[in-house]
Amino acid sequence: MMNRANTATLLLRCPDRKGLVAAVANLLARNGINIIDAQQHTDIDAGLFFHRVMFDMSGMTVSREDFLKQLEAECKTYEMDWKLSFGDRKKRVAIFVSKYEHCIYDLLLRHKVGELNCEIPLIVSNHEDLRYFADVFNIPYYVFPITRDNKREQEQKEIALLREHNIDVIVMARYMQVLSDEMIAEFPNQIINIHHSTLPAFKGAKPYHQAHERGVKLVGATAHYATADLDEGPIIAQGVEDSSHADTVDDLVRKGRDIERVTLANAVRAHLDDKIIVYGHRTIVF
Amino acid sequence: MMNRANTATLLLRCPDRKGLVAAVANLLARNGINIIDAQQHTDIDAGLFFHRVMFDMSGMTVSREDFLKQLEAECKTYEMDWKLSFGDRKKRVAIFVSKYEHCIYDLLLRHKVGELNCEIPLIVSNHEDLRYFADVFNIPYYVFPITRDNKREQEQKEIALLREHNIDVIVMARYMQVLSDEMIAEFPNQIINIHHSTLPAFKGAKPYHQAHERGVKLVGATAHYATADLDEGPIIAQGVEDSSHADTVDDLVRKGRDIERVTLANAVRAHLDDKIIVYGHRTIVF
Amino acid sequence: MMNRANTATLLLRCPDRKGLVAAVANLLARNGINIIDAQQHTDIDAGLFFHRVMFDMSGMTVSREDFLKQLEAECKTYEMDWKLSFGDRKKRVAIFVSKYEHCIYDLLLRHKVGELNCEIPLIVSNHEDLRYFADVFNIPYYVFPITRDNKREQEQKEIALLREHNIDVIVMARYMQVLSDEMIAEFPNQIINIHHSTLPAFKGAKPYHQAHERGVKLVGATAHYATADLDEGPIIAQGVEDSSHADTVDDLVRKGRDIERVTLANAVRAHLDDKIIVYGHRTIVF
Amino acid sequence: MMNRANTATLLLRCPDRKGLVAAVANLLARNGINIIDAQQHTDIDAGLFFHRVMFDMSGMTVSREDFLKQLEAECKTYEMDWKLSFGDRKKRVAIFVSKYEHCIYDLLLRHKVGELNCEIPLIVSNHEDLRYFADVFNIPYYVFPITRDNKREQEQKEIALLREHNIDVIVMARYMQVLSDEMIAEFPNQIINIHHSTLPAFKGAKPYHQAHERGVKLVGATAHYATADLDEGPIIAQGVEDSSHADTVDDLVRKGRDIERVTLANAVRAHLDDKIIVYGHRTIVF
Repeated sequence: MMNRANTATLLLRCPDRKGLVAAVANLLARNGINIIDAQQHTDIDAGLFFHRVMFDMSGMTVSREDFLKQLEAECKTYEMDWKLSFGDRKKRVAIFVSKYEHCIYDLLLRHKVGELNCEIPLIVSNHEDLRYFADVFNIPYYVFPITRDNKREQEQKEIALLREHNIDVIVMARYMQVLSDEMIAEFPNQIINIHHSTLPAFKGAKPYHQAHERGVKLVGATAHYATADLDEGPIIAQGVEDSSHADTVDDLVRKGRDIERVTLANAVRAHLDDKIIVYGHRTIVF
Repeated sequence: MMNRANTATLLLRCPDRKGLVAAVANLLARNGINIIDAQQHTDIDAGLFFHRVMFDMSGMTVSREDFLKQLEAECKTYEMDWKLSFGDRKKRVAIFVSKYEHCIYDLLLRHKVGELNCEIPLIVSNHEDLRYFADVFNIPYYVFPITRDNKREQEQKEIALLREHNIDVIVMARYMQVLSDEMIAEFPNQIINIHHSTLPAFKGAKPYHQAHERGVKLVGATAHYATADLDEGPIIAQGVEDSSHADTVDDLVRKGRDIERVTLANAVRAHLDDKIIVYGHRTIVF
Repeated sequence: MMNRANTATLLLRCPDRKGLVAAVANLLARNGINIIDAQQHTDIDAGLFFHRVMFDMSGMTVSREDFLKQLEAECKTYEMDWKLSFGDRKKRVAIFVSKYEHCIYDLLLRHKVGELNCEIPLIVSNHEDLRYFADVFNIPYYVFPITRDNKREQEQKEIALLREHNIDVIVMARYMQVLSDEMIAEFPNQIINIHHSTLPAFKGAKPYHQAHERGVKLVGATAHYATADLDEGPIIAQGVEDSSHADTVDDLVRKGRDIERVTLANAVRAHLDDKIIVYGHRTIVF
Repeated sequence: MMNRANTATLLLRCPDRKGLVAAVANLLARNGINIIDAQQHTDIDAGLFFHRVMFDMSGMTVSREDFLKQLEAECKTYEMDWKLSFGDRKKRVAIFVSKYEHCIYDLLLRHKVGELNCEIPLIVSNHEDLRYFADVFNIPYYVFPITRDNKREQEQKEIALLREHNIDVIVMARYMQVLSDEMIAEFPNQIINIHHSTLPAFKGAKPYHQAHERGVKLVGATAHYATADLDEGPIIAQGVEDSSHADTVDDLVRKGRDIERVTLANAVRAHLDDKIIVYGHRTIVF
């Protein structure tokens, strides 16, 4: 099988024009690099081109530095926004939790069995409740109790901690605090949240109660990037399940737990595998 | 197999108390009637009991009139709202269409192969376009062109036509006119509409464009009873399908067509089989 | 809300005839018992009637002993096979595991958050690997290493242990040993297994490899009661997810994990809530 | 929007090696051709590379003949199997039917509303029953009654008819005759069949009866290319829906109809849009 450590993934966005795929493919081919996987998308109305290329560098005939220089030159020529991730540098994830267990259980199980290609150097919470579960995996668990008065101060400490540990991604695994705009600005398109209902329906509090009142026949969940505009961040993944009059609010909450953790995990895996390009209020998930 | 003509279906709603199931079961048993199927639901918070009983009258030892008298007496005792439908009296359905074909194709196919237990004595439209398809099945097709000025007058004619033909159910198979409150009041909980999106999200016009703009990862449809409060009628059925950035608006519309017709058909079949009790803004669909 | 401790659930099977629902409903009503929920099913071809009644005994006017005597008499009259479960007596579950984590993580999470109405007095394994996870919840973890030579002997010890702890249900949470016919005979329709593929397709070993070879566009899982005829036990629940050529065997295994744990949990919950009647090679899951 | 008439789609298969994407991209770029969409897949174990490229030729700087020569040369160099389809040459589809309506209704509706990019010059049947529906769309309807004795002879006539009308694709829309190996050999990977159950389960006759007997909780359908080995052709698409003990065989058949027509349509659309590469007993559906 392929050795992931020799791979890299390139994400690109640029004005659409002829020869873009050729330019990238030639850059790789002339340096002895083999394309493993590639996807592309064109937004015809906006005149934009999006590209994801995963490649194997085991036969690369130049140094990484040389390759990067060539890549930069190419991207400048074509006005490309780009991001390159090397397979031997795992992303570092901080999980934020409050008291609900289901999402963190799920993420740590998936990490343990190898589904999530990342390191999890720390867990942050505003409550002590889930420390026992972090302990099972020997992951440091930091508690920052939040009150109306200390919120800004505590967030500053959290940001410092995250910076100290070189955190790339924050996963809000049912973390029940609204992040400040400042926090979100520190990690643009790096904070993944799970909303316990299908957006744009049932925004705000107690969505399962709202769903029950309205007698809906489906319940769902939405994973999205956190933005300053709450519940309006770019949607990454959504899930849904049937419901009926026979479902109590408890049943809806139970179904919600199942959908939330799977949907959140799908979003996190897509992010870790460099499959997402954010684009206006939308995402492309290759 | 069971002969449907000998069956009847009873729908009940009443304050919850002990002995309700026994009262109904005894009424049936003492008259030689066999229960084929039964469902019940209790809304504990509201203190309400809901019951559906389908039974076989082939061994009934009294006349229908006698049985109805006994039923009325029983229902009075327990403050039951009730509705009884006999299997030898098929519901009479009017389909309303405009120009979109997919829902009417679907309904007429299902009717032809025996999925829908009803008669379809007529189709009403505000356009000539789909007459050719009504002709395939020899169903009379009435056209009432609607303008801003003649709407009330045309609706009066429609109501008269529907009354003349003893119509029980109106199915709005992508009929692109908003019905007046008067029309809706004439057929309470008898008009089934399909909304081309999952309510409560994306109410109003062009929901697939809205969905595309928002970059949702699911598209859906909702069948509901028409009420004066547009898009807020009791939901009967919902359907959903995955979508992605690769879907154009046309793709979403195509997926929508598939979901709309199946969801509408599910709602219509539930109504025809007397499986629905409307209850506040909600439905119970047994 | 309803206090579960005052409830009981009755499961019935008998030859179909008139008056069965009335007989049960009268028995309950005359003893001051309120029906909370009820379902029924008739197999017309086989002439069999199936019934599930959940009721609230908080207003019961007789002792449990008296009620049981009356119930026995009634069941004798109508040739009913019956099973009664009291809500104040939780079922006792033993989980069997080997080395895969995903199903046991899932079951213990669900138990912790209150989804599974049972006690879990012990976990049995043929390996030490998952002891760490049982320890999180302080559940005794017994290891019986199985070899070709000691299998019968070890199973005898397991049966003794299960009997000693009054175990009602065995959940094979990816337990990788085939149980002997003797073991299965000890716990008829009380052992729930998860098969990592949709039966009847891809029986036997390595179903995800088989699915990959065949290029299927769906993968799934089946929860069923263990019977002497391996992979042929009555199916309780099934789940499925889309797949494509882009899925490696690892991807199929990952998708399988998600489906397996949800499907197993659905089956276990149905069993614990007394919703299942086994019937030939089939189940009725109310 | 893009004018489909100026597009073409290239499907490729070849031994995996470096520079393949670059070779194709360069060929297109140097002739003024813009890539609209592209997908690729590598089977690492088999050392094979698969590629689909859809491109816009409106700015092509050479003639089609010149371009084809260059393409042939390139494909020879890289040992590529290839197929090129021009957007201004619609595929010509023959639909084969017997007596069931649901699949042909569905296909003709989809064709009418523009979902299927093809011409349908004729319908072939072994029965007169569905002529009325072909007439709605003015599609010639040819009947070849099949008996044990005349089968070979009738198939010869069918093949002649199909050849005469330059048919590219045969869609078996619940055509209830087994095609001869000769017929299949005439149209390799061009005959799409719908099997009314998820393969590999429930092969053979009456799959819904088999499913009912076995008490499965899911029913499905499989669309595949017809091969000499019946029910073993490469799978293109599959669909599935929940079922339960409450479903009669009629209910399963009804659910089957819904799944069959959607699954068949998905397979046909993928074929018409040149999204499928057959590969051993498998398909890649980009």
